[in-house]
Amino acid sequence: MKLMILGGDGYCGWPTALHLSDAGHDVVIVDSLARRGWDIELGTSSLTPIQSLNSRIEAWREVSGQEIEAEVGDLLDWGFVADVMQRHRPEAVVHFAEQRSAPYSMIDREHAVFTQHNNVIGTLNVLFAIHEIMPECHLIKLGTMGEYGTPNIDIEEGFIEIEHNGRRDRLPFPKQPGSFYHLTKVHDSHNIDFACRTWGIRSTDLNQGIVYGTVTPQVARDPRLANRFDYDDVFGTVLNRFCVQAVIGHPLTVYGTGSQTRGMLDIRDTVRCIELAAVNPPAIGEYRVFNQFTEQFGVRQLADMVVAASGKLGIDASIDYLPNPRTEAKEHYYNAKHTALLDLGLEPHYLSDSLLDSLLNIAAEHRVRVDEQVIAPRVDWRYGAMMERDAVAVGGE
Amino acid sequence: MKLMILGGDGYCGWPTALHLSDAGHDVVIVDSLARRGWDIELGTSSLTPIQSLNSRIEAWREVSGQEIEAEVGDLLDWGFVADVMQRHRPEAVVHFAEQRSAPYSMIDREHAVFTQHNNVIGTLNVLFAIHEIMPECHLIKLGTMGEYGTPNIDIEEGFIEIEHNGRRDRLPFPKQPGSFYHLTKVHDSHNIDFACRTWGIRSTDLNQGIVYGTVTPQVARDPRLANRFDYDDVFGTVLNRFCVQAVIGHPLTVYGTGSQTRGMLDIRDTVRCIELAAVNPPAIGEYRVFNQFTEQFGVRQLADMVVAASGKLGIDASIDYLPNPRTEAKEHYYNAKHTALLDLGLEPHYLSDSLLDSLLNIAAEHRVRVDEQVIAPRVDWRYGAMMERDAVAVGGE
Repeated sequence: MKLMILGGDGYCGWPTALHLSDAGHDVVIVDSLARRGWDIELGTSSLTPIQSLNSRIEAWREVSGQEIEAEVGDLLDWGFVADVMQRHRPEAVVHFAEQRSAPYSMIDREHAVFTQHNNVIGTLNVLFAIHEIMPECHLIKLGTMGEYGTPNIDIEEGFIEIEHNGRRDRLPFPKQPGSFYHLTKVHDSHNIDFACRTWGIRSTDLNQGIVYGTVTPQVARDPRLANRFDYDDVFGTVLNRFCVQAVIGHPLTVYGTGSQTRGMLDIRDTVRCIELAAVNPPAIGEYRVFNQFTEQFGVRQLADMVVAASGKLGIDASIDYLPNPRTEAKEHYYNAKHTALLDLGLEPHYLSDSLLDSLLNIAAEHRVRVDEQVIAPRVDWRYGAMMERDAVAVGGE
Repeated sequence: MKLMILGGDGYCGWPTALHLSDAGHDVVIVDSLARRGWDIELGTSSLTPIQSLNSRIEAWREVSGQEIEAEVGDLLDWGFVADVMQRHRPEAVVHFAEQRSAPYSMIDREHAVFTQHNNVIGTLNVLFAIHEIMPECHLIKLGTMGEYGTPNIDIEEGFIEIEHNGRRDRLPFPKQPGSFYHLTKVHDSHNIDFACRTWGIRSTDLNQGIVYGTVTPQVARDPRLANRFDYDDVFGTVLNRFCVQAVIGHPLTVYGTGSQTRGMLDIRDTVRCIELAAVNPPAIGEYRVFNQFTEQFGVRQLADMVVAASGKLGIDASIDYLPNPRTEAKEHYYNAKHTALLDLGLEPHYLSDSLLDSLLNIAAEHRVRVDEQVIAPRVDWRYGAMMERDAVAVGGE
């Protein structure tokens, strides 16, 4: 089928584009290259060297014989969005193209406003393009498990049956997001739900957990196809960052007690979940929500696993418990459902020693590229401003 | 106390500013005058002649001896927002300053994007100004009962206690808003709740019903203090519009079966609710939600009441049932709680024959100013575009 991958140059978007292309689908990448710009702004870069979008696509053509088209432009530019939708007429649009770092959105007012404007208006433009140009096109939108927060009840997939004063209804699951970034995903969810109800378009909202890993079978086929590996305080996510810290002899930075529990998944499952959503579209007018993760972990539990895996490789890793810069519950109940994608056929890659070995080895291979200055976190939730470097630790999405 | 009224030149903002000034508070109006610009854009105007903001304020000074200050500027302009907050240092900010018409937000993509950008980012700027400049300032924010939609369970005030699989939590009430405008109020609610949780600021979110009437004791003191009276398809709300239709001999335009039920209130109660919220502030860090309406009515029921009241004045009014341009349930359960403001001392003005007489008389007094061209509605929810005039009827908020 014909698929358009918005944000197809990013950490999840690039391996998704390759996976879908390898599976025989016709893939168009749409990207503003904004993620590369944020690296420049923050003085950070991927641990793994990554090629330009054009070079990556050319390498994929050489390696696979498959063509991926690229369109460089911004979703805030309606003329651009309408034009690519008109020319390519995709059957499904996969939408990764948002600012996805919680710490970035909490740097200051400008970054909060940028994130909300960029994500909410960009998605509105995508909705209008589908409505006006390709009304049967399936919008596959990346949300986040962080939309739900940590309620004291089981988290369902998007909707919950509520009985109240003797009456019942199936209603959107209440949301308690934890950053200006996470809030944008909640805003998007409400906007998309409305567009499906009102216009009869169809969408799958994938509330994704924290992704770890960086390699997929397609990415592994050539060094020029390498995926990003973020380990910095703003865009690095927790498990990948721990592996880099272990390899360079930096204590693993756990904030608070490390009891915070989150849903997580391997990037090889991310790409497969997108495909499952695409080849099993919802009915016209349907808005459906899947929780896209495979296992729940506590932050401290992850740190312990990385320490153990490091030990087997002869690396003596340690853990530092730091004050938590985020406003979140220290101890909380967490039990989130995630059966919809399993029902569609997902076969999870559970977190294993071999995956940790692989991540530690990638970190070791590129350790000369690590900039220790960008590991110590700089953003505090309470002040909404960049802190002095070396203060406390935060962790990516 | 010192109060800043954002949107203090508008339909609810102006009588609120006068009421609070009359009650001895120190009032600053902040307004971009955007509402007057939308009249120009749409070719509409208030049924009642209204003075410029400066003339109104000058008239109030003459009549009452009270000074109201005015600051003209846009909440999207951070420099302006920070400057007025710095110079005035209000104890409470009352925030009416949003694009508040559902049909306006549904005209087309540009109007949807404008509404979401204007409302969400403007409110973000207000939140940051409070956080950075006046952290103890109480934000009194106008939401809407339309945030809830029409669930098949009782609507609580902002939060609901949910029992699920043997566990319990008090969570935000699920939201199912019915237009791109109503969605902005949902987005605002989530942003404000987060700011209170994360920064410890305090806010009252007033989910207001549909307001009717135009006169308060202060407004009535001089013709130069007259409040707006909107009757057009885009900004006119249902009861006020019915009264104008009756007076000019236009059938009352009810869409669908008229069974849609909504919470409503008299504008004299709007101004009193704001004062009650201001003089009874929440604790530091608290986000509280009040449902601000006094009675529930069906649309057909309102039309019947206007027909009956017209008959007593010798006006032979009739009703036209038109296709509903909005996407909403024809028949639905509706029972919304509204006890918090009563508990604070609100004494409601229930809808009465004398109020209907007064509205019909105001409409009759100004009937020469009525432009029949702007009564027949032009916006259809399904197409997201202006329809041919004379198609079907919508009703304000």
